[in-house]
Amino acid sequence: MTEQGDRDTGLNVIDLNADLGEGFGRWTLTDDEALLDVVTSANVACGFHAGDPSIMRRVCALAAERGVRIGAQVSYRDLAGFGRRTIDMAPDELADEVTYQIGALDVFARAAGSRVSYVKPHGALYNRVVTDEDQAAAVIEGIRRADPSLPVLGLPGSALHRAAVAAGSPTVQEAFADRAYTAAGTLVSRREPGAVRHDEDEVVARSVRMAVEHVVVAATGEPVPVAARSLCVHGDTPSAALLARRIRAALTEAGVSVEPFA
Amino acid sequence: MTEQGDRDTGLNVIDLNADLGEGFGRWTLTDDEALLDVVTSANVACGFHAGDPSIMRRVCALAAERGVRIGAQVSYRDLAGFGRRTIDMAPDELADEVTYQIGALDVFARAAGSRVSYVKPHGALYNRVVTDEDQAAAVIEGIRRADPSLPVLGLPGSALHRAAVAAGSPTVQEAFADRAYTAAGTLVSRREPGAVRHDEDEVVARSVRMAVEHVVVAATGEPVPVAARSLCVHGDTPSAALLARRIRAALTEAGVSVEPFA
Amino acid sequence: MTEQGDRDTGLNVIDLNADLGEGFGRWTLTDDEALLDVVTSANVACGFHAGDPSIMRRVCALAAERGVRIGAQVSYRDLAGFGRRTIDMAPDELADEVTYQIGALDVFARAAGSRVSYVKPHGALYNRVVTDEDQAAAVIEGIRRADPSLPVLGLPGSALHRAAVAAGSPTVQEAFADRAYTAAGTLVSRREPGAVRHDEDEVVARSVRMAVEHVVVAATGEPVPVAARSLCVHGDTPSAALLARRIRAALTEAGVSVEPFA
Amino acid sequence: MTEQGDRDTGLNVIDLNADLGEGFGRWTLTDDEALLDVVTSANVACGFHAGDPSIMRRVCALAAERGVRIGAQVSYRDLAGFGRRTIDMAPDELADEVTYQIGALDVFARAAGSRVSYVKPHGALYNRVVTDEDQAAAVIEGIRRADPSLPVLGLPGSALHRAAVAAGSPTVQEAFADRAYTAAGTLVSRREPGAVRHDEDEVVARSVRMAVEHVVVAATGEPVPVAARSLCVHGDTPSAALLARRIRAALTEAGVSVEPFA
Repeated sequence: MTEQGDRDTGLNVIDLNADLGEGFGRWTLTDDEALLDVVTSANVACGFHAGDPSIMRRVCALAAERGVRIGAQVSYRDLAGFGRRTIDMAPDELADEVTYQIGALDVFARAAGSRVSYVKPHGALYNRVVTDEDQAAAVIEGIRRADPSLPVLGLPGSALHRAAVAAGSPTVQEAFADRAYTAAGTLVSRREPGAVRHDEDEVVARSVRMAVEHVVVAATGEPVPVAARSLCVHGDTPSAALLARRIRAALTEAGVSVEPFA
Repeated sequence: MTEQGDRDTGLNVIDLNADLGEGFGRWTLTDDEALLDVVTSANVACGFHAGDPSIMRRVCALAAERGVRIGAQVSYRDLAGFGRRTIDMAPDELADEVTYQIGALDVFARAAGSRVSYVKPHGALYNRVVTDEDQAAAVIEGIRRADPSLPVLGLPGSALHRAAVAAGSPTVQEAFADRAYTAAGTLVSRREPGAVRHDEDEVVARSVRMAVEHVVVAATGEPVPVAARSLCVHGDTPSAALLARRIRAALTEAGVSVEPFA
Repeated sequence: MTEQGDRDTGLNVIDLNADLGEGFGRWTLTDDEALLDVVTSANVACGFHAGDPSIMRRVCALAAERGVRIGAQVSYRDLAGFGRRTIDMAPDELADEVTYQIGALDVFARAAGSRVSYVKPHGALYNRVVTDEDQAAAVIEGIRRADPSLPVLGLPGSALHRAAVAAGSPTVQEAFADRAYTAAGTLVSRREPGAVRHDEDEVVARSVRMAVEHVVVAATGEPVPVAARSLCVHGDTPSAALLARRIRAALTEAGVSVEPFA
Repeated sequence: MTEQGDRDTGLNVIDLNADLGEGFGRWTLTDDEALLDVVTSANVACGFHAGDPSIMRRVCALAAERGVRIGAQVSYRDLAGFGRRTIDMAPDELADEVTYQIGALDVFARAAGSRVSYVKPHGALYNRVVTDEDQAAAVIEGIRRADPSLPVLGLPGSALHRAAVAAGSPTVQEAFADRAYTAAGTLVSRREPGAVRHDEDEVVARSVRMAVEHVVVAATGEPVPVAARSLCVHGDTPSAALLARRIRAALTEAGVSVEPFA
């Protein structure tokens, strides 16, 4: 099993992924239509931290029309906390919840003529499985029960990716153009000042450099290698779609091919 | 499209279905293991009125081991009311919720080597779609979006079955051995005295007569034809499994073959 | 028990009420701070259709600081449907849910130095208790269990107000400046075209006429008497606070005193 | 502020508390009526891990009739996990959720002629605030916002009790007759073998010794002082009420006065 981000084909290829469908009932959050015109992979909320069946159907239909790949953005069951709070779940229950969410989304993806093509954990679960081996293994078990061939989108070097490799699931590495990196190539904690980069020009420039040179400048100044097959752009701010559009244009201009990985 | 309950093969064949997996988290309700040794079709709760991912996984595994068919027992989203309260939903939202539940269950059924083989609405939704054409059509739309070939288990003459026939979905008729019938062949409302038959000997005898003679004695005394391919036995009382076992034994003794319909 | 809206003091007095605190977790909806600078009564969501404990605390604190009265905006338990879907609940369970919501809000109101001063049903429950005597009586029972002196804000002539009067609870009548009225003085159903008035100048003019002349022009053209102690202004649109501000200014200019009723 | 369990009056006095009202909708768990005939303090679930408004009303009414004190058994919001999974909540949100639950229960307690007389965290929250200073302080803040005079029932030496003392809230110490203790007087983790004592004779004997001699024999054999004003008896097993009855009878026979602390 090779990490898809590791390959070097001479031609620079990158995927753009964003969290979508994160409304619930009367509430909206992400500008799904605008973002689906830009990204190549849609991390669709499955009802546990956001998303309801009608939103899921609509986002899957819009994504399928545009050829945007549909990923299951699986989460802790926590509407009240938007999946942003770690829950000390028993691993087997976590695995079951992951499976449930993938199945619930896949039926809409298939009805739209597509399918769930990958899985990416959301929020607190994403962060937890960077280091928690038990929950990481549970997520992978839950994914593999649905489909052992489903790629797992996540952070390079994460426990999640180690568990995927151990189990035989494909992994896809992602990078964050608007997050500060340490010299070790990990993300600076959101609790640190400067962890999130708000300057849009900087974010665009970093995106291009990540895709072309496979490098990011760490918070401490040194260049750090970043091997990512996908860039995560954020979808939950009013200007998210505009920034994503700028990033995509700059990538194209730099000769990078923006393509889905799945 | 013919109603499967209509056929007359000379050999009497009947399915036994029961509602299963109706716990939630810490709470249990149905004696799943005992009932799965008796019934041929399991109406598995999908998380909207009862059932959680771990229960769904376990019940699917137990059902698949025994060759018991797995049906999606779809419901209004109402854990607090156990799906027993009619909700005036928009039809398109209801359709989406039905699709979601089928997808969520199917992934566990397939992981267990089986699949969702039919759909049966639960509780208030079951009752509502006996007469409500809009919600009936929505349920059928939601089912067909998941799989147009999925049989719909329900009440003969119901709006649900009419909508299924109109859309081209197979229907399967069921009867209730412990419910009083009117002379018109419909169920006596639960609000009427005597609507539910509690005498176990009577319930067993009615079951056999339904399967062998395709007849039930109405509350008003006259025999009424009942063309059912499946008998619903109740699973939510402590003695439910015992009664189901007695019914199955009596059917077998009467020469009825107890077989799934799907 | 007299209806407070019936009194004619010579001085025109009106209350402005709006639905507030209708976010949930990560999601926001109502511009609470802007509206609390305009209205005199805040119908605060209590967690059943919207609102979470943190939102409730913040809205209560902001309301109390401004002297805005806090009302419990009680709802069916339906986050997924934002309380906009009728649920056929057993009356005693509905009464219990109303009591629960009032208690949950009152503790925050008191912590802010105020208290729950009135109750107004939300959404589908509001509409249902215009005519449904059983649910109306249940809502009143639930309110009186919390506090028999709590005024009930609602539609003149509603089953809710009849039940309140019968039980001895104070009633307060409200009118809707942006809703079309029938010649009989009831609201035109939202399903009818023109049921909601979107022209802001018209809404402002109707507000003033309701407060000064106690009259509204029906959809069919004739003037209809409207005896309202409170005007409901809507809070769930981006321009809601601006419109509310215009209404308040116009009322003041017309010599109407904008004062809470409770 | 003195810990009520510290006092030595010569007369041995003890309270018996149990978790009650832990059903939800269709599901039941605790044998509320039987336990309310035995205990002197009822830890009533408030809807976040279990309990719904109708159950809360009924349990409050039954408790008030018997003079059993009503305590708010506050929990993380986690019906699916029965409040048994730690959630990494922001302290201010936790405080708000605690306040909400107390308010929701208090309105039923007052309607029954009683009031919420104390607070006891449930499940994972109970365990977390034994050591987590931030969440402990948040729970106390949430309690004090509802009523600064409310006693906090908990484990001696817990962060929760330290936070209560620091804030000026009364504390009440409890002991567990069916749990193994370490030589340091803390509970043996449930993950250790023998952590829960299942021999009923032993549990009864330990209860009496705790109440009379203020001592328990640790898992390692030595006697350990236990200064408890309340004994927790478990309510979620079929035989719970019987065991509680035996404990109460044995206490009475040993000259211990079984009395509420609040």
